[in-house]
Amino acid sequence: MGYKIAVVGATGNVGRELLNIIDERKIPVEKLHALASSRSVGREVSYGEDHNTLPVESLEHFDFSKVDFVLSSAGGEVAKEFAPKAAKAGAIVIDNSSAFRMDPNVPLVVPEVNAEALKTHQGIIANPNCSTIQLMVALKPIHDKAKVKRVVVSTYQSVSGAGKAAMDELFNQTRSVFVAETMKGTEFPKQIAFNVIPQIDSFMDDRSTKEEWKMKAETMKILGKDVKLVATCVRVPVFIGHAVAAHIETENEISAIEAMELFRSTAGITLIDLENEELEYMTPQEIQGEDDVYISRVREDSTVDNGLAFWCVADNLRKGAALNAVQILERLIAH
Amino acid sequence: MGYKIAVVGATGNVGRELLNIIDERKIPVEKLHALASSRSVGREVSYGEDHNTLPVESLEHFDFSKVDFVLSSAGGEVAKEFAPKAAKAGAIVIDNSSAFRMDPNVPLVVPEVNAEALKTHQGIIANPNCSTIQLMVALKPIHDKAKVKRVVVSTYQSVSGAGKAAMDELFNQTRSVFVAETMKGTEFPKQIAFNVIPQIDSFMDDRSTKEEWKMKAETMKILGKDVKLVATCVRVPVFIGHAVAAHIETENEISAIEAMELFRSTAGITLIDLENEELEYMTPQEIQGEDDVYISRVREDSTVDNGLAFWCVADNLRKGAALNAVQILERLIAH
Repeated sequence: MGYKIAVVGATGNVGRELLNIIDERKIPVEKLHALASSRSVGREVSYGEDHNTLPVESLEHFDFSKVDFVLSSAGGEVAKEFAPKAAKAGAIVIDNSSAFRMDPNVPLVVPEVNAEALKTHQGIIANPNCSTIQLMVALKPIHDKAKVKRVVVSTYQSVSGAGKAAMDELFNQTRSVFVAETMKGTEFPKQIAFNVIPQIDSFMDDRSTKEEWKMKAETMKILGKDVKLVATCVRVPVFIGHAVAAHIETENEISAIEAMELFRSTAGITLIDLENEELEYMTPQEIQGEDDVYISRVREDSTVDNGLAFWCVADNLRKGAALNAVQILERLIAH
Repeated sequence: MGYKIAVVGATGNVGRELLNIIDERKIPVEKLHALASSRSVGREVSYGEDHNTLPVESLEHFDFSKVDFVLSSAGGEVAKEFAPKAAKAGAIVIDNSSAFRMDPNVPLVVPEVNAEALKTHQGIIANPNCSTIQLMVALKPIHDKAKVKRVVVSTYQSVSGAGKAAMDELFNQTRSVFVAETMKGTEFPKQIAFNVIPQIDSFMDDRSTKEEWKMKAETMKILGKDVKLVATCVRVPVFIGHAVAAHIETENEISAIEAMELFRSTAGITLIDLENEELEYMTPQEIQGEDDVYISRVREDSTVDNGLAFWCVADNLRKGAALNAVQILERLIAH
């Protein structure tokens, strides 16, 4: 016995991780479908420790009444098209795109943070943006204890968040620098090899980027409207793993020691601090393939009342996307 | 007629730029000395458009009474040793290390910001830390107009700030990733290729790094004790060019438009904003070899009263080090 599950966008970075994590976490599966656009039909995707394979089926022609759950990592436009149909056909859709995140009828969920929001779903559940997820996991215990008022974040986001072609572009552009060629890219607005780019997604009227706006709007939807957030989102030449430098202010006093105790006792968080009497910390390259959100460099910020700063790193393809979606699925199954 | 000038650390990243910029800006030179540690004696350094060469002389055995000015980019320990002797011998030392920056008898100067502090020098003048310099240039016009109260910065600092060996390490480690080898580094605490490292310099008692402390302490020395700053300083796999994401609060109201007008009319700053009706911005890779501090992504931050955010990029070897030192020299010569 098990569930019938379709994975949409199965040939992409996150789709592949969705299949891997379903296998890894032993989700009871009766039938698994790998869906993608028609041009991928005929290909196979392999996943899991045993290198299982699935034929790619056409998203366009798929009958969603055949499945219980849909885990999707297609683009927003594709999601807008198929997700309502799938929900109407009786499937529960867990969508990784930004299409439904701000829809008041769609819960936006990080299971460790606001699983209770799942109760009110109407067939579609949204997975937050990658940087938002890891920040929410970090902020939640602090918020419960001391009420987070304001968050100033700068991000260091890896190229895998922009897809497989973007990873190839970093790889090929780096190689072209080595042989002293210039390689014009197509996936990023500027050269990404040996560079950092303060633009993720398009610009909005208030001169922030859409990525920056998402972090702010999604944080308010998840933690509450009183939590103010301002972000500068930056793409860095790292393949996998996002980092966030967070500078926060809380309503009530909380020391670095207290914050670290909270982080240490929260499921889903690994706190890195003293090791052999030296301060230690985590970098993106070190946590590729890991499930937890890694928090380090916790310190008090005396430039403001009740100020706290920390550094937060997670695998953007796992906790920042696929793992979070599968964890939502686990909560739904458990009920 | 001209000045007798010694450049200390002439074989390093910044030393080479010092020689180039002295040539480029046509500083009237009677005699130029390239000094380094004894083990570099016998080598030659070449500089300038005409590829002039100088023999490397021994710092240890140099007679500083022979020169008017010393521009130094040696390490702090070396500077502590020779700079007081050189000053005693009658030379004016412009030192790029952190050795004297917080010494109350030593002016810490960014010429566009606080040239008046030069008047009280006693033979030694300190050049601020690279990230501090570019931030000071950006903050000064805002501070004069609206009084800066608090600054939250996250940095994206290139490896050249850590010296030539660090640049080689990024290069070689990147190549080793390409051929699927692992290369243990010696210049950084963690792998820098395709990674970011939230540690620059050693850790202090308050759990910040010395680099973060420097930005705070130097900002207060240059702009005044009322300016509070908290920083997260991060090394990124970029060869040359530092970026700073700044989120500031001012005493008095200032709009993004007003701030941009100030930036546009300030010498030493290039403002990047709309281009062909699209928002544009600058990345480190694009400004290598440039003199100005480039400011872009100026926007209001509504999460706090009188909040403003911007992105600031400069060549850390030039404005962040050598150029600033030569500009100090120019001010001294002009008087």
